[in-house]
Formats: sequence, structure tokens, C-alpha cells
Amino acid sequence: MTSLQKDKKSLIMDETEFGYIKWIQKRLKYKPEVIIGSGDDTAVIKIKSFGSKQNNSLLYATTDTIVEGIDFHISSATPEQIGYKSVAVSLSDLAAMGGGFSKIYALISASLPKNLAKPHFTHPLFQGINYVSKRFNVQIIGGDISSTRGPITITSTLFGIDKGLKPIRRNGACEGDALLVTGKLGGSILNKHLSFTPRLREAELLNRHYKINSMIDISDGLLADLDHILEASNVGALLDTLSIPISPEAYKLAKQNKIKSLNHAFSDGEDFELLFTTPIKEAVQIIHDKRLAKTPISIIGLIRKQKGIFLCNSMRKTSRIAPQGFKHF
Amino acid sequence: MTSLQKDKKSLIMDETEFGYIKWIQKRLKYKPEVIIGSGDDTAVIKIKSFGSKQNNSLLYATTDTIVEGIDFHISSATPEQIGYKSVAVSLSDLAAMGGGFSKIYALISASLPKNLAKPHFTHPLFQGINYVSKRFNVQIIGGDISSTRGPITITSTLFGIDKGLKPIRRNGACEGDALLVTGKLGGSILNKHLSFTPRLREAELLNRHYKINSMIDISDGLLADLDHILEASNVGALLDTLSIPISPEAYKLAKQNKIKSLNHAFSDGEDFELLFTTPIKEAVQIIHDKRLAKTPISIIGLIRKQKGIFLCNSMRKTSRIAPQGFKHF
Repeated sequence: MTSLQKDKKSLIMDETEFGYIKWIQKRLKYKPEVIIGSGDDTAVIKIKSFGSKQNNSLLYATTDTIVEGIDFHISSATPEQIGYKSVAVSLSDLAAMGGGFSKIYALISASLPKNLAKPHFTHPLFQGINYVSKRFNVQIIGGDISSTRGPITITSTLFGIDKGLKPIRRNGACEGDALLVTGKLGGSILNKHLSFTPRLREAELLNRHYKINSMIDISDGLLADLDHILEASNVGALLDTLSIPISPEAYKLAKQNKIKSLNHAFSDGEDFELLFTTPIKEAVQIIHDKRLAKTPISIIGLIRKQKGIFLCNSMRKTSRIAPQGFKHF
Repeated sequence: MTSLQKDKKSLIMDETEFGYIKWIQKRLKYKPEVIIGSGDDTAVIKIKSFGSKQNNSLLYATTDTIVEGIDFHISSATPEQIGYKSVAVSLSDLAAMGGGFSKIYALISASLPKNLAKPHFTHPLFQGINYVSKRFNVQIIGGDISSTRGPITITSTLFGIDKGLKPIRRNGACEGDALLVTGKLGGSILNKHLSFTPRLREAELLNRHYKINSMIDISDGLLADLDHILEASNVGALLDTLSIPISPEAYKLAKQNKIKSLNHAFSDGEDFELLFTTPIKEAVQIIHDKRLAKTPISIIGLIRKQKGIFLCNSMRKTSRIAPQGFKHF
């Protein structure tokens, strides 16, 4: 779920993708070794060795597709950037489970139109894939190239082997938790969606040293992804609008299209930042943790029992809002 | 690598995909736990549990993409068939490594145009995916649905956990081995490419009871995939044209398009049968193995030292031919 928000006119989230996914999820049955199936940022499986009673590795698996004309434009993205993004989007999903992998493996499947299945495009595309893979210690173990009469479509499937940390799910947010976010939000379409750094390092540090109750990466937009946490955890949230970290790009976009910068931070897709909840005491420690000093981290609200997302604005007035985010179809 | 041969005029194999893949493979580096990397039907990885010196599971991973207009046509394939095929093509890759998995997991990534991202299409599509998954004990653990302005594109990534059998590679064919094939070949485009049975059962049986030196599934065409075995094993082959099992569909196509049925069997893509080599003595036992009686298995030739593919025809004359198969781009 990584598509850019292109159509600013329709801020109401279309339910088609989520409706379809829920319909499927109801029909999936898992054996006990599937600790987390469809419905979180990655699946998690306990792998038992054949003939051994002793267990076990955890295997985290995720897949994501980027499509030309939706997730990037060939006119404004270089082949290197397209390759980079194709893997980085899935790395962000791995990060959202709490990071911390002893190994990460990738399978890349690219569908290319005939005129681009040539070295001038495929070589730099691979170089982008290889660059991000080396940077995050990912081994590319397989792939597939097929021909298409349509847009470039690249699917990256990653799996990570754990190193003893627990997965952090979407469904663990507790009443009283603080809500935190890494980075600055909004306006990703101007550049960041092609060059963002998957927050694997931050996620592992948080998971290793703090009690993180829930986590997700922001791909559909802050409010939409917050809603995923809230729905899975059966809670609500109160956001402090003055605390939302707004990116310079969101301000820039706001000048161009007259949509408030705060709304860009709320609803633009593809920030690929971490949104997570933790007890307030830990939240304060996280804010002052020197190991995380290079990454902006903000406390933006609180988890509460009452369902829904509420905003507390600069006048200290509270109002309820609808989750807004990328319209998938 | 699963695309149908559409253009019968160009029987000469285009090297673009293979050339590109080789260029990539040279640039990939693996750590020792990657037993088989890119270049076979699946990758194989040894998974060590965190904190344990004892090992370990083998994880087989493969990915494959089907694209509308190339691998199927929306006018002639039902949504169920498209779903079935999307998973079956990857199952065939797992089979080609020697079958035998204690668990198989799937991640499915579908890019759909807006008009098809509706229940009338998505529900039967999922039912096809679910049908083949249940039949082969595959658990669907995740996926992704994205929007596209182009053709339907579905990527299935499967991984299998071993149950104590060794992987069978492409590179183990020995001089003097017999060359065998399951099923009947050619004309898959008429129906079989949408409804074939991945040969997991046969592959496991062969791997468990016989010394199979090399194996591949036929996706690009008999000669093209044979060439993959020969090149990887650094040997050649002599085929007996009278022993090639030609499918009824190949005969039917031959009448329509005046291309010999034997050439259909040689070069049509998407048979998804197993092509393998084994010592002659074992080959004879395999042919008479009652457990395999339901599946036609034919001895079609011999592996020899001299490189290249040679045909021995009905007049007992021998001639060299070029590997022919699906033109990917």
C-alpha cells in the first residue's frame, strides 16, 4: 500500500482496497506457526527445523508493488530512483514491525515495456536496487523480468530473519499511550517519496530499548495509517495540531495549491515515517535519547478509550475528524 | 519466466532477458547461508535460529509475474483461471527444485485497473488463488493491491520450508544420464497454460526415491529449458525425436498454423512439465514406478559430453539444432 496521493480534491478515503482486503482476510485460515498473517505491515512466521523440536527463527515477509503513473512518473524519476524506491517501500514495512533483522533477502519482479527492456534503462534501474540493498544489508536472491504492454510495474518481496526482538504490531495501542512520529510529514511527492530512508535503524533501537506498544509506517497518510492502528487496537486518539511536524515540502505545496500545510501533513501519502505508541514516560525518554538525536521524533497526541480521531487545535478546541488518505482506486 | 509464446514467426530465442539477468547475476554477492542464489528455479537459503548453533531449515523462495496481454487475455481467461495461474506458475518453480515442502507460504501482489478493482472481478480472482492454494497446502500470508493504468499484473512470491530433501539444481546433469520429461508437450496456449497441475507430487516422489541429477520446469519451451540445464551443467544432449511426447493440442495447433506438431512440442512455452536427468538404470525404474503411473513420463534422450542439442530423427540421422523458445521482449 504505497501509492501517492495524486488527487487532492478527493480527501475522503476510498474504502475499495481495504474493503477487498478485509473480504479476503475473512477467508484466510492459518496454522499455528503463522504468528501474524495478512493485516499488518508484514507477516511473521515461526520456522521450525525439520526433525528438530527446538525452535525457531521468526521470518518476516512482505510484498509491495510500485506502478508507473501512480507511484512514480518516468518523466521525473530516474531509473536509479525507481529501483531505489521499489525496494525501499518494502524495507519500510519491515521497519514498521520493529526492525532488527539478522538477515534480509529480496526477490524482485519487474514488468517492463519493450522499449525499456534495454541496458540504458535496466542497468541504472538495477543500480538503484543494488544501492539500497547494499545500504541495508539486503541480499537479492531472485527475481523475474517479464514483458508488458503497459506501465513499468515492480514488485519487491522481502523477508527478514529475526535477531531475537519481538514483532511490534498495529493492534497494541493502549489508552494513555503517547503517540509519536519520526521525521516531518507531508509533501513527499515533491521528492522524498523517491529518496526516503527506511527507518530500520530507528525501529530497531526503539524496539530494543523501549516498550513500543504499536507501530506502523506512514504510507497512506498520517490520519489513514493512524486509523489502522486505532481500528486494530480498538481505541481512539487525540492529536495536538500544534505538535504535528510539518515538512518544508508541505509548506511549499500549500503555497502552490491552497491546501493547508497541516492537511498535507495529515493526508499526503508516502512519508514512510514511523508512527508508534508507547507509555508517556518512555515517550519522554525517547525524545531525549541521544542515539536517536539525528532523527526528528515528535509526540503528537495521546491514545484514549473514546473511538475516533479528535483534534485539539491552537485555540484548545477539540473536534472530531475523518481519517483521510490516499484514494487507491 | 512464464510468458506464452505468442509469435510463432520468431522461433529464434531472444537473448534480452537472459542477457540482462546474467549481467545482474555477475553483480550479486552472497553470504555462505545462500546455498542457491539467482539463476535456478528458486533460491535456497539455510536459516539458522537466533542464538542457536544447531541448524537448520532450508527456505526455498521464488517469484513470478503474469501480465494481461502476455500471459493471459481477459477475453479468454476467467478471473478464477487468472488467479489459479498466478500461483501455479510459482508452484511449478518450487516443484522444479525437487518438491517436498513441509510448509508453503504465499505473498500475492496484484495491480488492477480501476474498472476491475470491483467484486465482480476481485472475488473470483481470489477464489482462483484460494483454490490452488488449498489444493497444494499453501498459506497466503500477505499481499498488496495497487492501482494501474495498464494491464492486470499479478506477482506471486512463494516460499517453501524443506522436509529433509535436497534441492535438485539445473547444473548436475552428467554424461550418460537419461533425459526425461513428464506429461505431453506443446499447444499449452489452447488451454493448459491456465489449468495445468504443478508437478509437486511427482517431483517429491522422484527426489525421495531416485537419484535425480538435474531438474527444471518447462516454461520457456522444451529446447530452451533443456538449454538452461545443458549450459549450467556444461554438457550437451541427444534427443530422439520419435520419443518426444506430443500433446493432442500440439497436433491441433499444427493443423491450424502449418507448423509441425514436433516443433510445437519443442518450442511452445508454458508446458509446466518437469524436465530432468537421472542415470539410465534409474530412468527405467521410474518409467515402471506404479506411484507415478498416473503421470506420463518419457525418456526423450541422453546427456553427452559434446555441447549443443542434437536430434536423432526417424531416419536415424543426427543433426544439430538451436535452442528455441519464448521471445521475452
